[in-house]
Amino acid sequence: MITWNNLDTIAAYKELQKVAPVNLAETMTGENGADRVKKYNVPMAAGLAYNYAAKQVDDDTLNALAKLAEEMQLSEKFEALYNGEVINTGEKRMVLHHMTRGQLGEAVVADGVDKRSFYVDQQEKIAELANKVHNGQITNGAGEKFTTVVQIGIGGSDLGPRAMYLALENWAKVNHTFKMEAKFISNVDPDDAAAVLNTIDVAHSLFVLVSKSGTTLETLTNESFVKDALKNAGLDPSKHMIAVTSETSPLAKSDDYLAAFFMDDYIGGRFSSTSGVGGAVLSLAFGPEVFAQFLEGAAEEDKLAKNKDVFSNPAMLDALIGVYERNVLGYQSTVVLPYSQALSRFPAHLQQLDMESNGKSVNRFGEPVTYLTGPAIFGEPGTNGQHSFYQLLHQGTDIIPLQFVGFKNSQMGRDVVIQDSTSQQKLCANVVAQIVAFACGKDDENRNKNFEGGRPSSIIIGDQLTPQALGALLSHFENKVMYQGFVWNINSFDQEGVQLGKVLAKKVLAHDTDGALKAYSDLLHI
Amino acid sequence: MITWNNLDTIAAYKELQKVAPVNLAETMTGENGADRVKKYNVPMAAGLAYNYAAKQVDDDTLNALAKLAEEMQLSEKFEALYNGEVINTGEKRMVLHHMTRGQLGEAVVADGVDKRSFYVDQQEKIAELANKVHNGQITNGAGEKFTTVVQIGIGGSDLGPRAMYLALENWAKVNHTFKMEAKFISNVDPDDAAAVLNTIDVAHSLFVLVSKSGTTLETLTNESFVKDALKNAGLDPSKHMIAVTSETSPLAKSDDYLAAFFMDDYIGGRFSSTSGVGGAVLSLAFGPEVFAQFLEGAAEEDKLAKNKDVFSNPAMLDALIGVYERNVLGYQSTVVLPYSQALSRFPAHLQQLDMESNGKSVNRFGEPVTYLTGPAIFGEPGTNGQHSFYQLLHQGTDIIPLQFVGFKNSQMGRDVVIQDSTSQQKLCANVVAQIVAFACGKDDENRNKNFEGGRPSSIIIGDQLTPQALGALLSHFENKVMYQGFVWNINSFDQEGVQLGKVLAKKVLAHDTDGALKAYSDLLHI
Repeated sequence: MITWNNLDTIAAYKELQKVAPVNLAETMTGENGADRVKKYNVPMAAGLAYNYAAKQVDDDTLNALAKLAEEMQLSEKFEALYNGEVINTGEKRMVLHHMTRGQLGEAVVADGVDKRSFYVDQQEKIAELANKVHNGQITNGAGEKFTTVVQIGIGGSDLGPRAMYLALENWAKVNHTFKMEAKFISNVDPDDAAAVLNTIDVAHSLFVLVSKSGTTLETLTNESFVKDALKNAGLDPSKHMIAVTSETSPLAKSDDYLAAFFMDDYIGGRFSSTSGVGGAVLSLAFGPEVFAQFLEGAAEEDKLAKNKDVFSNPAMLDALIGVYERNVLGYQSTVVLPYSQALSRFPAHLQQLDMESNGKSVNRFGEPVTYLTGPAIFGEPGTNGQHSFYQLLHQGTDIIPLQFVGFKNSQMGRDVVIQDSTSQQKLCANVVAQIVAFACGKDDENRNKNFEGGRPSSIIIGDQLTPQALGALLSHFENKVMYQGFVWNINSFDQEGVQLGKVLAKKVLAHDTDGALKAYSDLLHI
Repeated sequence: MITWNNLDTIAAYKELQKVAPVNLAETMTGENGADRVKKYNVPMAAGLAYNYAAKQVDDDTLNALAKLAEEMQLSEKFEALYNGEVINTGEKRMVLHHMTRGQLGEAVVADGVDKRSFYVDQQEKIAELANKVHNGQITNGAGEKFTTVVQIGIGGSDLGPRAMYLALENWAKVNHTFKMEAKFISNVDPDDAAAVLNTIDVAHSLFVLVSKSGTTLETLTNESFVKDALKNAGLDPSKHMIAVTSETSPLAKSDDYLAAFFMDDYIGGRFSSTSGVGGAVLSLAFGPEVFAQFLEGAAEEDKLAKNKDVFSNPAMLDALIGVYERNVLGYQSTVVLPYSQALSRFPAHLQQLDMESNGKSVNRFGEPVTYLTGPAIFGEPGTNGQHSFYQLLHQGTDIIPLQFVGFKNSQMGRDVVIQDSTSQQKLCANVVAQIVAFACGKDDENRNKNFEGGRPSSIIIGDQLTPQALGALLSHFENKVMYQGFVWNINSFDQEGVQLGKVLAKKVLAHDTDGALKAYSDLLHI
């Protein structure tokens, strides 16, 4: 029997608050630091590992967190989720994104079909289309091959797929699995679509329109923009567009599309990279085999998230340490710092994933909570960030926990030796140096050059950023966010906070405004 | 006579803390809201205006802030800065970036030369080179025109110039001032350089190496990477590279470069977009005339920053309101939300500008301060962010102040009418709607759909994102950051916090480590 309780009613949480705080600079110095690095390390899927040696925790903290996990029934809640309970209570929906890449528990039937079969079926249909596009069975009106795929979508239909594409683009180029260049149009700003259209050859471009409801304002507007461009080029839009949408959407059975692939209400936009939302564009760009490897990595990592033992469950452990930092230590944001240029937009995806899921002030029953929930999330790749905002992270007046990601090997294998080391070695040396600099600091008589240390971080280390590793990385953060939502007793799967702006924007466009809305509209000449 | 005092010693600051807090939702509702929008609006240069109606301030707060500005001698401190006082006390340097675009006060002589003349001279030399490249007087070894310019730099040598290039790329394409495509290599990750080299034709590429010291590890490594690629293509690197560096750097007089342009110690990397650091790549990409227009916009905005009356000084006013939010209201981060896809990397530039300048814990005399200094800064373009992290901004447990930017007109003028409005109108309607939604909120019996409001924002509104408007925007934020540094009594112009990581990375590469450094090095196989 699962009970859903607020964090501040949990006995283990009260115990956690009493645990003596860890002096990170002290504990990470000398051989004790080395021991922690070896000990506080959990294997993940696809050769990754989650290392939390530089977090502000020790065995006492960790045991208290394990008790919290148990009392809050985190494993049982995940089990309920993947077995099809209505976890998204606000919208009265199941939460089934794990099922796009495997089946963790029982079969789940909804809308009269087995959901795992439904997702697999869509993947197979996408794979078939992608193969036909690649081998020239599906071509443009002139019988020529498509060379470019353009995703039209926003939010979850853009950030995840775009981040995943960029993460694998160069890997695919050197591994000969690169099939088509992908571009993305998301913003309703007309300069976004116009700029993308300027850089592509529309006659050889296939557009993927992604909108679950089929009513997303930005996406429909950009679709019209693109259709105009196709028509102006003397082309038939219906031979250049496919749709990814729900079966009940106006796009589902329209003749305007070459094909339509389906998603459903049980997968939120920000959790949809492993569904058809990511599947269509990634299968077209890299081939269905690469997309399958990506799913494989995610599925393997999902299995680890089932472990009841928190110390062999990296997502749950990461989630709990994050809650400790947020609610006991009082830290406000988290920075994501991948030492991999390929992950340049991965922080932007995590920003949506985390902040849209857990940026809530009411619990799953709609009652206000009196503790902090989701933090602000941002980040940029290292080493770039080191020459930018790391100054504040090292010496600013706030402590901001850090999430590093690093790989032993580059994706492209092209490198140069300067001053006795390769670029990849320099990259890795920098992330190691930063972790220790943040944790241990350095005393200096000149206070301006003094580093207090005590700034916590964790790192996920991998061999190489492959499709499997990327899938595992994605799954890790999805499950981390889910577990944090469980701890905060909030619904991580709705997003009511985006509605008011939509309603008011419609009023502005209809000139149905007064007061400040009207005054701002005048300033912007709307 | 200027005195430099800590914020918490200032009488006006104590008064400010006593001012009754503003109920933003209440004051922005109805006609009072409309009045605020009209009244709390300051003209900026290049047709921009700074509107702070939706900030949590009223006349009482604003008058208290004006007194704070006076008591802290903010205008006098700026005057001292542009007249050449050693404001960067840690590094014992003057701070002269304003002089790259105009002369606000007295002539400043350093290193035996008039500094304004020195910067103008470098600009003229860059313009001459750019014109020769564009008209084919300077070509590759085969006598063919260069088509691409690639900036190699990191931090301030990358983020600002890259953000400015992206901001003007499409404007330049439709206004026929686009001369050469620009690319950027920054990260020491070998996949960064390899990926850029994969997308360009090196035989027709001109590389701009930017490093003030001539010793930046990442930049020198990437230079070698590029030189290897040029040699492998049978090309002479010295015919493909120019340097932007200091006169005393090892790069300054090397035969390895077609030309060298100079910067000096009085312009920090993050303030260098208007110097040769931005000048070379932007003049090559868009022509020197466009770069001159950009400088013109910055120079006009700088003049407004001299106004002693805070209510006609948008940078000072923005700075003071930010301090009020940070130190009195206790808000931790600031989000930058340009409703313009062209400004996609502008938030990343501001992130460096602000966090590297004001992420400090000691005052300008090296004494610890006991109040909060610079906030964390992040952001993404709207409307994209609305479908991503706005959920937390609307309904999360923390209040995060918002900085919007919007333009009446698009850059490319290509648009489509859907449901009776253009994309540009939809874009503008959304930013208006968001400001009011954040400020006023909306009551709902279903607490999950309830919006508390009271979330403060400001907006900079312009006609169009032109080179002049971009220059004004850049200057505004540079001067805002400077004024906040004055209020916090810190040195905004050094960055000692980046040093420790560099030292430790060298130790790791030399295998001169023990403890945690060694243990992490083992995990990453360094």
